[in-house]
Amino acid sequence: CPRLVSLVDKVKEIVETNEVRRLPKIPKGTRDFGKEQMAIREHAFSIITGVFKMHGAVSLDTPVFELRETLMGKYGEDSKLIYDLADQGGELCSLRYDLTVPFARYVAMNNISSLKRYQIAKVYRRDNPSKGRYREFYQCDFDIAGVYETMEPDFEVIKVLTELLDQLDIGTYEIKLNHRKLLDGMLEICGVPPEKFRTVCSSIDKLDKQTFEQVKKELVDEKGISNETADKIGDLVKTRGPPLEVLLELRKEGSKFMGNAGSVTALNELEILFKALDKANAIGKIVFDLSLARGLDYYTGVIYEAVFKGTTQVGSIAAGGRYDNLVGMFSGKQVPAVGVSLGIERVFAIMEQQEMEKNQIRATETEVLVSIIGKDLILAAELVSELWNAGIKAEFKLTTRIQNHLKYATQSGIPWMVLVGESEISSGKVKLKNLAASQEEEVDRTEFAQVLKQKLRNP
Amino acid sequence: CPRLVSLVDKVKEIVETNEVRRLPKIPKGTRDFGKEQMAIREHAFSIITGVFKMHGAVSLDTPVFELRETLMGKYGEDSKLIYDLADQGGELCSLRYDLTVPFARYVAMNNISSLKRYQIAKVYRRDNPSKGRYREFYQCDFDIAGVYETMEPDFEVIKVLTELLDQLDIGTYEIKLNHRKLLDGMLEICGVPPEKFRTVCSSIDKLDKQTFEQVKKELVDEKGISNETADKIGDLVKTRGPPLEVLLELRKEGSKFMGNAGSVTALNELEILFKALDKANAIGKIVFDLSLARGLDYYTGVIYEAVFKGTTQVGSIAAGGRYDNLVGMFSGKQVPAVGVSLGIERVFAIMEQQEMEKNQIRATETEVLVSIIGKDLILAAELVSELWNAGIKAEFKLTTRIQNHLKYATQSGIPWMVLVGESEISSGKVKLKNLAASQEEEVDRTEFAQVLKQKLRNP
Repeated sequence: CPRLVSLVDKVKEIVETNEVRRLPKIPKGTRDFGKEQMAIREHAFSIITGVFKMHGAVSLDTPVFELRETLMGKYGEDSKLIYDLADQGGELCSLRYDLTVPFARYVAMNNISSLKRYQIAKVYRRDNPSKGRYREFYQCDFDIAGVYETMEPDFEVIKVLTELLDQLDIGTYEIKLNHRKLLDGMLEICGVPPEKFRTVCSSIDKLDKQTFEQVKKELVDEKGISNETADKIGDLVKTRGPPLEVLLELRKEGSKFMGNAGSVTALNELEILFKALDKANAIGKIVFDLSLARGLDYYTGVIYEAVFKGTTQVGSIAAGGRYDNLVGMFSGKQVPAVGVSLGIERVFAIMEQQEMEKNQIRATETEVLVSIIGKDLILAAELVSELWNAGIKAEFKLTTRIQNHLKYATQSGIPWMVLVGESEISSGKVKLKNLAASQEEEVDRTEFAQVLKQKLRNP
Repeated sequence: CPRLVSLVDKVKEIVETNEVRRLPKIPKGTRDFGKEQMAIREHAFSIITGVFKMHGAVSLDTPVFELRETLMGKYGEDSKLIYDLADQGGELCSLRYDLTVPFARYVAMNNISSLKRYQIAKVYRRDNPSKGRYREFYQCDFDIAGVYETMEPDFEVIKVLTELLDQLDIGTYEIKLNHRKLLDGMLEICGVPPEKFRTVCSSIDKLDKQTFEQVKKELVDEKGISNETADKIGDLVKTRGPPLEVLLELRKEGSKFMGNAGSVTALNELEILFKALDKANAIGKIVFDLSLARGLDYYTGVIYEAVFKGTTQVGSIAAGGRYDNLVGMFSGKQVPAVGVSLGIERVFAIMEQQEMEKNQIRATETEVLVSIIGKDLILAAELVSELWNAGIKAEFKLTTRIQNHLKYATQSGIPWMVLVGESEISSGKVKLKNLAASQEEEVDRTEFAQVLKQKLRNP
């Protein structure tokens, strides 16, 4: 049937044309980082790694995918967000969900007894991108594994966190801090049965977003906690303030916490931690807050969360705590650990905003543009190589239109131009142009690189 | 049946015990990079990005996985090595196989007309790990996309390649260079029919590993090339040498290349390239080599490959060329491009070897260890914070055994120790110990940070 063949050909043509015209896409929830974003990201990374190196932390890199069995049983309900690789024969693998489990796997696999490491890397979650969440995003983790004196690594992790947030300079913040054993002690005191500790904790964890009335309703209606117990909890979680003051308060005569073994242990540990942070001038940002619960099950000691203060920047920027049992899940040999994870995507976003307001983003560091008013690549090669040899960051451009040279230099924020046209070539000179100052001068071609170096290094 | 229950319990116990004892693994063909390796890697990255920034290249980051359709039809037979993500609902995605296709996709998607970018990132191939190949490994790519004067970006890419290899200082090398149009011209001159150009090229590509006799056999027996044609090819591919000399040779009166349009174009382009490289002092490492063919189909102009000279380090360390049609495969709009990919895993391996021989690898940059001979965290916090505040990279350690302090400082290569025991505490002094010089001195606790800063910054 010729009409059918003709129709099929027509459809084929339309489909093929569309295929050619259709622009390519990237997967939902992922992004490219373009040149300006990369410049900001590198700036943030350099501040962050600077802090880590100040503390003698080492860097670790792990594969982007792990054996699926490594990730199983670590994330509870969130396991459904794990990206699996297709079964193409061989092992079953999944993309990493965070950096903590690969760290624990590494410590266990290599039978390491102590390690202070940082890792800045992408993690993967099949989350709903419509909520503004990314499916591929950076995490920045700092952890110390090993047996130390009481609060020794806990102190350093919190000190590092304050240094990170101070040096990144992205907003006023406070670090809410609590202790899992104190939290459990509090629930015991209020009359919560031990088997309900974790589920009550996840209700308390919502107090930063919900009123106590809402949380109480959940405790009573859904979790079977009595009205009286819920009110007792509501009373105690209000306790918050400067760490050493709250500590005194909780330890004063008649405090119910002093009759609770777990709480006493926690308060003794916190005393050492607070005094150490005080000596390190790092206690000013800490708020001892009995309402801080943290969702994750694996925490066993101190827990903390950094939040922005003020109206525009809401929410958590970093969080962490002590987890003494995770490494043991892999090797059977317990290696206690404590760490913090910085929400670095938020750091990027804030820094991007700041830099845009200051109009300061430069994607390159180019110092000089060699502008050949013509098409002579060989001349360009000679001149620009002299700059490269002199350690000057330089680009070159060939075009007869001087406006294009100027436009390029201005758009890229390049401070100096070397202009070379017909007259310069015949006279053996080149013209140096300082764009900010709108000044030009002619110098001998034989010495322009040295003159520029002088101007750039000793302005 | 109680015996069966007991047996099942027994089996369960053994399985569970084994599970606890079994050490975790990582996927085949992947690696963790530990602290010493990371130190070397960061050193290599800093040299490499230094070169790129010298040329005004911008950094780009793309997602680790792309839509599967983006990768399809780009890698020929090697497509079977692509890692797919599992179909968990939603889009079909695959891990990136190289950095060139994501770059072309980025340029097309964002309708970019020119871009000079570098990217250092991991790529994924389901290759056979038993051949010593990794399934996750770094690539380091530098590409320039856009319409420029003849050979303008080609010159810069090759210049960058020489700077990379010179500055990494990992061995003597040469850069073999050829031109696809010259290669096709050569085949035409020898009498190869156009439809066999690519398949003959892949045979020629084997000349670095096989003798001409072996390649000739393949050409004649498998690819249907006549003996006479094969011998003509064998004669011409021997041509190699200093670029400007070979160029003269190929252009001299009576050269068959001068009667072939494609070859004439190629030789004219190469003349500009070689003269530019000559002016940039970068021609010394280039060998114009008519046997260089490069396997990949997508090259359209200049092609090159850097190889180590000498006996121990064999094989290709970097390769690249001009590919003018790849971006157009995505958007329908052609954006010509040229680039190079550095085999950075090999760079790591050689640098690791070099550093091990020099016994120079330090995983941290720690300058001072604060050694508290005791368990006083609060004292440690006070002293070490003074060092951090003074911008000194410092760690602290609490233990009554002075040997443990010394061992740690020595193993970590930390040059200075601050020793604080009972006597120092009571006298208000601390002891500074220089490990390399085996010298000790006592200084006031109030000024030890300043004294150390002086010693470290003005030794």
